[in-house]
Amino acid sequence: ADRGNGECRSRLTFTRCPARGRSSCPATKPSMLNVHLVPHTHDDVGWLKTVDQYFYGGRNYIQHAGVQYILDSVVAELQKDPARRFIYVETAFFFRWWSQQSRSTRNIVTQLVQEGCLEFVNGGWCMSDEASTHYSSVIDQMTLGLRFLNDTFGECGRPRVAWHIDPFGHAREHASIFAQMGYDGFFFGRLDYQDKDRRMKTKEMEMVWRASASLNPPTADLFTGVLPNGYNPPPGFCWDQSCSDDPVQDDPALEDYNVDDLVSRFISISKAQAALYKTNHIVMTMGSDFQYENANPWYKNMDKLIHYVNAQQANGSQVNVLYSTPSCYLQELNLANQTWPLKSDDFFPYADGPHDFWTGYFTSRPALKRYERLSNSLLQTCNQLEVLGGPKSRSGPFGKGDSDTMKRAMAVAQHHDAVSGTEKQHVADDYAKRLAEGWAHCQVLVSNSLSVLSGSEVPRVFCENLNISVCPLTEGSKMFSMNVYNPLARPVSWSVHLPVNGTSYNVTDSSGNVVDSQVIQSHGRASALRRPSPAAPPLCADLHAASPLCFQYLKVTFDPNTGLLSGLTNLETQQSVQLTQNFYWYNASVGNAESSQTSGAYIFRPNSSTPCAVSKNSNTVLCVCQNSVVQEVRQQFSPWVSQVVRLYEGSRELELEWTVGPVPVEDGFGKEVITRFDSNISSAGYFYSDSNGREVLERRKDYRPTWDLTQTEPIAGNYYPINSRAFIKDGKAQLTVVTERSQGVSSIYNGSLEIMLHRRLLRDDYRGVGEPLSEPGEFGNGLVVRGRLLLTLTPPETAADSHRPLAQGLVLQPLLSFQEGAPKPTSKLEAALPPAVHLLTLSQWDSESVLLRLEHQYESGESKAFSQPVTLNLQVHTHTHSAVTALLPCCLLYRLSLLCFDCSFFS
Amino acid sequence: ADRGNGECRSRLTFTRCPARGRSSCPATKPSMLNVHLVPHTHDDVGWLKTVDQYFYGGRNYIQHAGVQYILDSVVAELQKDPARRFIYVETAFFFRWWSQQSRSTRNIVTQLVQEGCLEFVNGGWCMSDEASTHYSSVIDQMTLGLRFLNDTFGECGRPRVAWHIDPFGHAREHASIFAQMGYDGFFFGRLDYQDKDRRMKTKEMEMVWRASASLNPPTADLFTGVLPNGYNPPPGFCWDQSCSDDPVQDDPALEDYNVDDLVSRFISISKAQAALYKTNHIVMTMGSDFQYENANPWYKNMDKLIHYVNAQQANGSQVNVLYSTPSCYLQELNLANQTWPLKSDDFFPYADGPHDFWTGYFTSRPALKRYERLSNSLLQTCNQLEVLGGPKSRSGPFGKGDSDTMKRAMAVAQHHDAVSGTEKQHVADDYAKRLAEGWAHCQVLVSNSLSVLSGSEVPRVFCENLNISVCPLTEGSKMFSMNVYNPLARPVSWSVHLPVNGTSYNVTDSSGNVVDSQVIQSHGRASALRRPSPAAPPLCADLHAASPLCFQYLKVTFDPNTGLLSGLTNLETQQSVQLTQNFYWYNASVGNAESSQTSGAYIFRPNSSTPCAVSKNSNTVLCVCQNSVVQEVRQQFSPWVSQVVRLYEGSRELELEWTVGPVPVEDGFGKEVITRFDSNISSAGYFYSDSNGREVLERRKDYRPTWDLTQTEPIAGNYYPINSRAFIKDGKAQLTVVTERSQGVSSIYNGSLEIMLHRRLLRDDYRGVGEPLSEPGEFGNGLVVRGRLLLTLTPPETAADSHRPLAQGLVLQPLLSFQEGAPKPTSKLEAALPPAVHLLTLSQWDSESVLLRLEHQYESGESKAFSQPVTLNLQVHTHTHSAVTALLPCCLLYRLSLLCFDCSFFS
Repeated sequence: ADRGNGECRSRLTFTRCPARGRSSCPATKPSMLNVHLVPHTHDDVGWLKTVDQYFYGGRNYIQHAGVQYILDSVVAELQKDPARRFIYVETAFFFRWWSQQSRSTRNIVTQLVQEGCLEFVNGGWCMSDEASTHYSSVIDQMTLGLRFLNDTFGECGRPRVAWHIDPFGHAREHASIFAQMGYDGFFFGRLDYQDKDRRMKTKEMEMVWRASASLNPPTADLFTGVLPNGYNPPPGFCWDQSCSDDPVQDDPALEDYNVDDLVSRFISISKAQAALYKTNHIVMTMGSDFQYENANPWYKNMDKLIHYVNAQQANGSQVNVLYSTPSCYLQELNLANQTWPLKSDDFFPYADGPHDFWTGYFTSRPALKRYERLSNSLLQTCNQLEVLGGPKSRSGPFGKGDSDTMKRAMAVAQHHDAVSGTEKQHVADDYAKRLAEGWAHCQVLVSNSLSVLSGSEVPRVFCENLNISVCPLTEGSKMFSMNVYNPLARPVSWSVHLPVNGTSYNVTDSSGNVVDSQVIQSHGRASALRRPSPAAPPLCADLHAASPLCFQYLKVTFDPNTGLLSGLTNLETQQSVQLTQNFYWYNASVGNAESSQTSGAYIFRPNSSTPCAVSKNSNTVLCVCQNSVVQEVRQQFSPWVSQVVRLYEGSRELELEWTVGPVPVEDGFGKEVITRFDSNISSAGYFYSDSNGREVLERRKDYRPTWDLTQTEPIAGNYYPINSRAFIKDGKAQLTVVTERSQGVSSIYNGSLEIMLHRRLLRDDYRGVGEPLSEPGEFGNGLVVRGRLLLTLTPPETAADSHRPLAQGLVLQPLLSFQEGAPKPTSKLEAALPPAVHLLTLSQWDSESVLLRLEHQYESGESKAFSQPVTLNLQVHTHTHSAVTALLPCCLLYRLSLLCFDCSFFS
Repeated sequence: ADRGNGECRSRLTFTRCPARGRSSCPATKPSMLNVHLVPHTHDDVGWLKTVDQYFYGGRNYIQHAGVQYILDSVVAELQKDPARRFIYVETAFFFRWWSQQSRSTRNIVTQLVQEGCLEFVNGGWCMSDEASTHYSSVIDQMTLGLRFLNDTFGECGRPRVAWHIDPFGHAREHASIFAQMGYDGFFFGRLDYQDKDRRMKTKEMEMVWRASASLNPPTADLFTGVLPNGYNPPPGFCWDQSCSDDPVQDDPALEDYNVDDLVSRFISISKAQAALYKTNHIVMTMGSDFQYENANPWYKNMDKLIHYVNAQQANGSQVNVLYSTPSCYLQELNLANQTWPLKSDDFFPYADGPHDFWTGYFTSRPALKRYERLSNSLLQTCNQLEVLGGPKSRSGPFGKGDSDTMKRAMAVAQHHDAVSGTEKQHVADDYAKRLAEGWAHCQVLVSNSLSVLSGSEVPRVFCENLNISVCPLTEGSKMFSMNVYNPLARPVSWSVHLPVNGTSYNVTDSSGNVVDSQVIQSHGRASALRRPSPAAPPLCADLHAASPLCFQYLKVTFDPNTGLLSGLTNLETQQSVQLTQNFYWYNASVGNAESSQTSGAYIFRPNSSTPCAVSKNSNTVLCVCQNSVVQEVRQQFSPWVSQVVRLYEGSRELELEWTVGPVPVEDGFGKEVITRFDSNISSAGYFYSDSNGREVLERRKDYRPTWDLTQTEPIAGNYYPINSRAFIKDGKAQLTVVTERSQGVSSIYNGSLEIMLHRRLLRDDYRGVGEPLSEPGEFGNGLVVRGRLLLTLTPPETAADSHRPLAQGLVLQPLLSFQEGAPKPTSKLEAALPPAVHLLTLSQWDSESVLLRLEHQYESGESKAFSQPVTLNLQVHTHTHSAVTALLPCCLLYRLSLLCFDCSFFS
């Protein structure tokens, strides 16, 4: 009686959602093998087409896909038979569709959801990438989707299952987030082929993933299942319009009657699949990419399949097939009272063949990856200023602004073919455009808010091209003011470079106190930096004429013969390492006798394990600039690779600002550019990388924690994603690299750490994108990318004390804005959170409440000083200019209780 | 008020169908340009896939097409909005679909039909080919479809419009049949590109077709419209799943909002189209091959298009777009009270470019064309014996038999990619298989019926391989009886060849009277003829040792040097012509500098106007056999072409039995084999060919009656279809060739007539079939085809007196069946119809009535003796062994009054 009768439309009234959907789950047969057919569609939030093109079905000549029709069709088909089920995943699409529906359709859909016929799974705005996303943006995109479902459908709209069937490898932090969000289980499709082979043999396709080393079990424990056929139906049983499998031809009067054949094949496939799993329940994903645009062929044939397969039970068959959903399947697994194997590492890297490692996309489209990360910082600032500036932020002296545009753009950008870099070029352009539009809307909001906070209505500009030393206001003005908004909840030190034309400036703070500043000469006019000019004469002194770089905390040495970094000393701890750094490129494989696999947007496959040095003459041109604020060494490795090594006064980290591109490919070689640090640290094959910018996992060369690896790609098979940091260490020293975007990292040699910075390729890699990854850049000759690495040398015990705040400072960097003339004093929020507590989110939730997310930012055991429980007293603040009348404990603020996971602080 | 409100679902009850659907037609705006959108699908009853594969959607890897889903989807979409319309054409598919529907779906569909939302057009079992079909089978297939619609939906199911959007040229006889069936109008898509160009310029895209030279106008007058875009939507407005046009993207919040652009393009296209037509109504076909499998994208976007285009009327736009049907469009044309141009020839040949004449399919697959024609004869015999034998015919001593299987197989075979020969090989095989199955069912019926009529239950065999001299019963039996069933309604003379092993036989009729017979020697054993053996020694005498062929009515001479026919004399009229006959092949074009067009299943394009002679040494091997029954000359032109010239005692026609194949293609040349008659008749470029086996049309080389032809293909552009006869004539003599299958014919030289017999090609011709026409035959090395031509030489005035009965005798040839032992006397129907009256159909209609179709078989003016009105007194007959208790006048028997067109006999 507990399992329901499968007739989800039998109840016409309802007041609350059935607990965990149990009573809406289909009846199963305990003595038989139960085959759960899960009708589903996988709708990429952009890939070969943009998200809007996918929604409408525009540009179908690229790929036939129109999500509007999928939802139309499925809703119609679900109404025909209460036994039918469907799951939907991507709220970015559902939201668009819902907004176009009539009241009567909405009522029908609501009823289907209430009755469990239409079940949302995952439910975020998109199905995020797991390798190149930052946890803060993943949480935001999940919030956006889940909030919509909650607002629209209430408890019945709440997804119980996380569903990442397509992402190319799986991050432990994602599983941890899902567990903390309250999901009952997690299903995915892609994992290393060797891992899958082993798991099939040992019946370990389903497991419990212990997804955090910091949180006490079972806080981050999550049931995790590997789907049998990726996310496709078993061979021969695809009845989508995009498939060519024969339908169930059950009229004996017509040719090609095939019921007997189909039934026996299905039963045979079911039994074979059941042999790989532990219970008498198995799941079959009946759908694939953008399927169900015409749901009728699917359901009509599945109806028949179910009918004819189950009819064999009268002849002794023990196979029972039924429409189901992941949550109903999971419910049966729970009832089976099984013990599952435990998993505590992650599912990176992903390989679907011996020479097919999906480790290229960790770095693909580095500029998009940076823009996405920067946009997160802008969004958090925008969110905070929307709260602080009150209602006038959204409609004020500079017009109407909003943070929603940026929220949606960022949510879309988390998709596993967005920030991952695996989309077509025009789609990458669309993601960037959306972020730019989001920022344009936020700029108005920020201007309004700062106007509220400062009382000044002088127009404000944001100088988005400061990274290439372009800012017309600062370049042309005799007197201007700069506002620095720091979205971190504590003071931060931040050096600012502005292009100016004068030779002498008075710089003061808002109280009129002098701020230390220097005017240094650049390569000609500021705008000259737009295109790196290899032949530009050195405008700073020759290295040999200068001392080595050194301020109070750090000392850096260079080899005068090679021009390369040669050593690093922490002057506080008095520890030194030999350290060289150079730039190399792997020659991208175009396929060889072993395998036709090429390097492409997804796949990294060098044709040799030995990369080529970028600098051919091994004598890097370099020059040095030094003043009281900053010391710089400028290195030119080749016409297309240069670097500025920068040490700021008062800093404990070394900044390496690299510029790579346009990567030349006229020689016919695709190039995957890395920078490699070689040190005398005895790392012994171990290195460390973060998971989505949060916890850190140990990596080991040619090794996997859960199976006996056969390494077939000595370089690509050792690459892992980093989102914010990586390090190597030995007993004494830890060399940590903090990054400002997601990249690929490895340690191939003892004491070395290499980071892939940029990729330009000439071949597609046969994973569907159908384009070589060769970004044209502004001038069509290849994209120039500039980025930063922050390097620290510390004892291992105190490393986190540095890299945690460093990384958060890069994630939430200050926002600069400029006005002509003298500044007006602006209200400041002076209170700082304790060092272990990070302000993850402060955002307007609705007109009466705000969303506040605080988190403990240290892992258990990584810092003696800070890896301790924290008790925080959230008092009520009042700010005259804002709508924030009450900052209550976060759990009370969360409207979606499943998001309430940050309040325990290891308690 | 007369035009309805377009809300076809507003009435929930109805008792009879609205007259001509008028009140269910959508409202139009008299002052505006009304654009009638006609949603439709074109569902080939076999082409690249078999009819059943198309129905179910099997083998979708060949072509994505599943008619079951089309009807599912359209019915669902029509229910969503009463303004929506759809037309359906092919009853072969609708019948299959209907048989699988639930009562509730049937009720919904019935209501949709009653309300005019779902309108049947054409409504035959298929959309028949017009070049290679015989009128009797066209009438039968139309009957099968229309009867089903009438039985199922009554008057509302009756199609008002004939709809031949795809056939490759249009026969006048088809238009005549449609007019006589009571259709209000006829629409098609394909006509010669020069003709279309002219008609567009002169606004003659719509016309009245006067489709008979015999019937008094307006009996065979039919409004005929040429559709503007073939049968496709205007460019950019295809919203099928098979198309890639952008949908209406009307959400300004999403990218690529395109409403303004689409509306202005649609209005511009509408105005351009309106300039080609006479009224302020135009029609747009919104659909194409196998479209609407997912009807939602179509209707959703058309709904929006209608909404946004008509919204422009508020801004002064004069374009009004609406859902409509061909009959509603036609109703508006009728209301417009226009005068239409008159058309009295036909639309053959069809060319869609200067070098793209669709004249190859007149001959393509000659064996299938013959099997189809023979099957018609078998079906008519089966039908008649079902009537004559009574209920025991269907369930008797030999089991259960039926004529329905053959009726459906024949109806399917009329499709324009069936008997036309333009289907894939596996589909051609399927058509043949269906006919064979039909015949197997008929054989049981015939055996049962003859058992009733004769009282003998001795098993009966049919010796289907007599054409290759194989019949185990006659070859092995000492005494056997043969039943000759003559389906004509008058006595006929018919020579029978049977393979036997003895040297002397007594042959008597059923009364014991001796029948004249001869035993002649064949090429070794009878079965040796299965494969023509080029090296077989002549078993008959050398030509020079024999007199020329001559019996009382005809004399034939041969040139002893070439071995070719040299003259023909009609001994009754004492007229002689010089007449040579030879075999040639055109070298099939593989494309050239002028055009890439190849010869293929559809297209005939020789690469030279001069064909090659098959006989290389111009000295045909031949031999002569003569006896009191038959005189034969056997000619061997090459290893793969031979002929037997046969003259029977008492015959007025010469029989030419040709055998062609396997056509060799090892030389890399595709070959199109013709036989050509060259005479001294002064034909002056004129020749004559029949239309679907009924009326005869005058043809003229390099000339079209209705436009000033620019001839660009001197051979292919002069080919026309024949179904039963062709002739040339001058003031004195007419040389007529009667054929037993459909073929292509032309007259390139004065006095000559050429008939294409067989084609074997090495290239596809880019019209979709995707295969070269190269039939493998039994042994895979090429198909051998055998056929007959009957030749008469007469004065022109009396030619029809010969060729009319000759042709009907070939169409309805006697059925031979054999039993071991002595015969039992069989009842005979002795009464003969008058010479001018042909028994077209005698068939069981239901348990209480039979269908009788009689027709006048002479054209007006073609025969002094017989082209006269006939009065026939249909008396009541009684036959003890049959269910025929009353043969009433045909009109009373016709349950479908639209079929009642043969009773006037020129009155």
